[in-house]
Amino acid sequence: MTRLVIVGGSDAGIGAGLRARQVDPDVEPLLVVADRFPNYSICGIPYHVSGDVPDWRDLAHRTQADLEAAGLELRLDTTARRIDPAARTVTVTGPDGREETIGYDRLVVGTGASPVRPPITGLDRLGTADGVYVLHTMADTFALTEGLAREPRSALIVGAGYIGLEMAEALHARGLAVTVVEQLPQVLPTVDADLAALVEEELARHGVRVCTGVTVTAIERGPAGLTVAGHTTADRADAFSSTVDFVLVVVGVRPDTTLAETASVGLGVRGAIAVDRRMRTNVPDVYAAGDCVHTYHRLLETDTYLPLGTTAHKQGRIAGENAVGGDREFAGSLGTQVVKVFDLAVARTGLRDHEAAAHGLMPASRRTVADDHKAYYPGAKPITIKVTGDTSTGRLLGAQLVGHRDTGVAKRVDIYATALHHRMTVDDIADLDLSYTPPLGSPWDAVQMAAQTWMLTTR
Amino acid sequence: MTRLVIVGGSDAGIGAGLRARQVDPDVEPLLVVADRFPNYSICGIPYHVSGDVPDWRDLAHRTQADLEAAGLELRLDTTARRIDPAARTVTVTGPDGREETIGYDRLVVGTGASPVRPPITGLDRLGTADGVYVLHTMADTFALTEGLAREPRSALIVGAGYIGLEMAEALHARGLAVTVVEQLPQVLPTVDADLAALVEEELARHGVRVCTGVTVTAIERGPAGLTVAGHTTADRADAFSSTVDFVLVVVGVRPDTTLAETASVGLGVRGAIAVDRRMRTNVPDVYAAGDCVHTYHRLLETDTYLPLGTTAHKQGRIAGENAVGGDREFAGSLGTQVVKVFDLAVARTGLRDHEAAAHGLMPASRRTVADDHKAYYPGAKPITIKVTGDTSTGRLLGAQLVGHRDTGVAKRVDIYATALHHRMTVDDIADLDLSYTPPLGSPWDAVQMAAQTWMLTTR
Repeated sequence: MTRLVIVGGSDAGIGAGLRARQVDPDVEPLLVVADRFPNYSICGIPYHVSGDVPDWRDLAHRTQADLEAAGLELRLDTTARRIDPAARTVTVTGPDGREETIGYDRLVVGTGASPVRPPITGLDRLGTADGVYVLHTMADTFALTEGLAREPRSALIVGAGYIGLEMAEALHARGLAVTVVEQLPQVLPTVDADLAALVEEELARHGVRVCTGVTVTAIERGPAGLTVAGHTTADRADAFSSTVDFVLVVVGVRPDTTLAETASVGLGVRGAIAVDRRMRTNVPDVYAAGDCVHTYHRLLETDTYLPLGTTAHKQGRIAGENAVGGDREFAGSLGTQVVKVFDLAVARTGLRDHEAAAHGLMPASRRTVADDHKAYYPGAKPITIKVTGDTSTGRLLGAQLVGHRDTGVAKRVDIYATALHHRMTVDDIADLDLSYTPPLGSPWDAVQMAAQTWMLTTR
Repeated sequence: MTRLVIVGGSDAGIGAGLRARQVDPDVEPLLVVADRFPNYSICGIPYHVSGDVPDWRDLAHRTQADLEAAGLELRLDTTARRIDPAARTVTVTGPDGREETIGYDRLVVGTGASPVRPPITGLDRLGTADGVYVLHTMADTFALTEGLAREPRSALIVGAGYIGLEMAEALHARGLAVTVVEQLPQVLPTVDADLAALVEEELARHGVRVCTGVTVTAIERGPAGLTVAGHTTADRADAFSSTVDFVLVVVGVRPDTTLAETASVGLGVRGAIAVDRRMRTNVPDVYAAGDCVHTYHRLLETDTYLPLGTTAHKQGRIAGENAVGGDREFAGSLGTQVVKVFDLAVARTGLRDHEAAAHGLMPASRRTVADDHKAYYPGAKPITIKVTGDTSTGRLLGAQLVGHRDTGVAKRVDIYATALHHRMTVDDIADLDLSYTPPLGSPWDAVQMAAQTWMLTTR
């Protein structure tokens, strides 16, 4: 029987363990989990902070009992220290601090990512006791909610990516006055500036203050609170200063490769673990998956770094299947993602102009506003859709959508993602036999209208 | 310049005219429209009857002025009587009753369908003045709403297809006690019986009485109202009788080929006009599209009769493009459709077991219930999904979905439709890079969970 050891109890690790059991019911995967919270939904943390999910235990995709019933052996509060690939062992430190060496036939590394700590003066001296937080683990979550129990009245969030904006909404829901500071000239740098502007309007509408184009350089604790100082990013001409009770720094993540490096596992894009499409590292019998690895991009046909929960699940599943003798390839990521910001949903898949151009393609993008369903039926709302296509081949390259959270943006982006998966042309989107009834769509769905706009204005 | 004549002012005809202008801005399509209501949304009629769309004029996809501004010449209240293919002329009767002969270089026939009048004793003698209605045109709509102005208190609908159920909801909204009678053993014969049962529960929950398995044989007008009589379909053992103020007969449509037959245009499946995938009939320079033609099925690779608005738009667009010199093929229908019934949305695409088996495939279907988004986030609701796949090849054959109208059923069926378009296997659905955020989805979307259930329980 294959001795399968998996390091990591989040999406990739659990996905690997569950899939291994499906493919080979005899295998008994051993999961080494650094904390007490296996299979927690990290993406759900903002909704616990907001109060939408009052009990943090509900954030578990599955309970510990579920996982054990599914045949996974869990070693909680256990940190993997080093891999000896020649001996095929992992050395771990258990909750009592004692080292133990565990043998494996196949190893899956799913160590995830760590929050980036930007070069801000004072940041290394300040911690949760001072009201300065990061957010990545359940431990971070508990520290943050304890901080909120001290009833801060104002918060500043450094970073206006997905987590930054979700947390802006969460802290606003908790009654704090919220400021979001972003180094780049727009919020949500994963979508085009004109679409991000719609998100900025939505934040403003709810009273969240947004300062884009501002680089934070220092945080200092004083009698009036935490003073966050900075300057305009573009020219350093204007100074920024804001004094608040609560600071959250969420400026992205970097792959956690500490363990993998003990086995001299090769690294790839942005320092992530290099894997092939079977999720194999360069070390025999060592697989890796999730936020710690680089990710094959289906359109670019090259590796990128795209740490996403959906991708971690898929890669983990493939690593688990292959680790017990399967032979499945990762189909590749399209970078499909969606975020809810107050009443808006913002989604994207595939490539934007600059990303496509950087890879030698000839992109053009066109913007369309189309209703989610027939205008005559009550409740119709506009969706702004930007379609990107290649002007030389006509191929669909990507799509970005912004609309009310009830307008089906999340599933409409999936229609584009499915089209991209199959390398459709923009023109052929019109051929898709999509559903229609006046309360829920249009005879040509909004995704098709946007494709037709591209065709009529580009070629 | 091509003289393009189009007969029909609904989805196919208008689609043909607009597309012809896009492809060849010099062409001036002449549309012969039998009534005064070009480009009306027939699918929207139930929502005018219900009161959701108070002004019937809002049902127009485009106004007459819009259409004329787009370069279409409209001959309203004008009926095309016969085609002379040798002379390349259409003879029409205008609003003043005078005949006129119009020459064409290319002709598009988009004469649509007519409501089936089932063999019910008395039906041919009863009309709108008696409180007996059909529903297909704007004229039918006006007659029906005039009938409602007489404040009937009870209605019986013969036929529990899409229109029957939408009208049940509409008449219920208008305050009538509604009974729906269906000859088959279930409502919505386009989905499997176990899913139709969910729809029957929803109708019952709103107080709509549903009588399935009942064949109506006679309608008689008496002093107490209209008495609808029938018997159980299966064995004729039990008699049915109900006396109401208002009767609506909506048991489907048949292609209207009267005009086409004057040109000896060949007919195909179910007596619809036979066209190839370029929407050409067997008569030179005569194209046809929409509910009057048979429809190429993309999975079955054969012709079927599937009168749907979405298909009419697509076929009309292709006919219009090809009529002015284009060369585009209809990609084929998958029979994708969705209907809202009170708070439920019911959708399907592709084939069900019996349809697939009838064409020599080896289908199996599996049912999954999955939430529309993460259960921990407020408002999660279940979607019942039935996936049909071919057990010999693993290919996806179809999907049926039932869920609350807010659960994205209409766009989730479109993900399956896009997968079917590309002949994906059920297994490969897991490879799709779909979007995720806890308020709007799951790391494996419901469509992927249902596919995984099929894989784990079928193969």
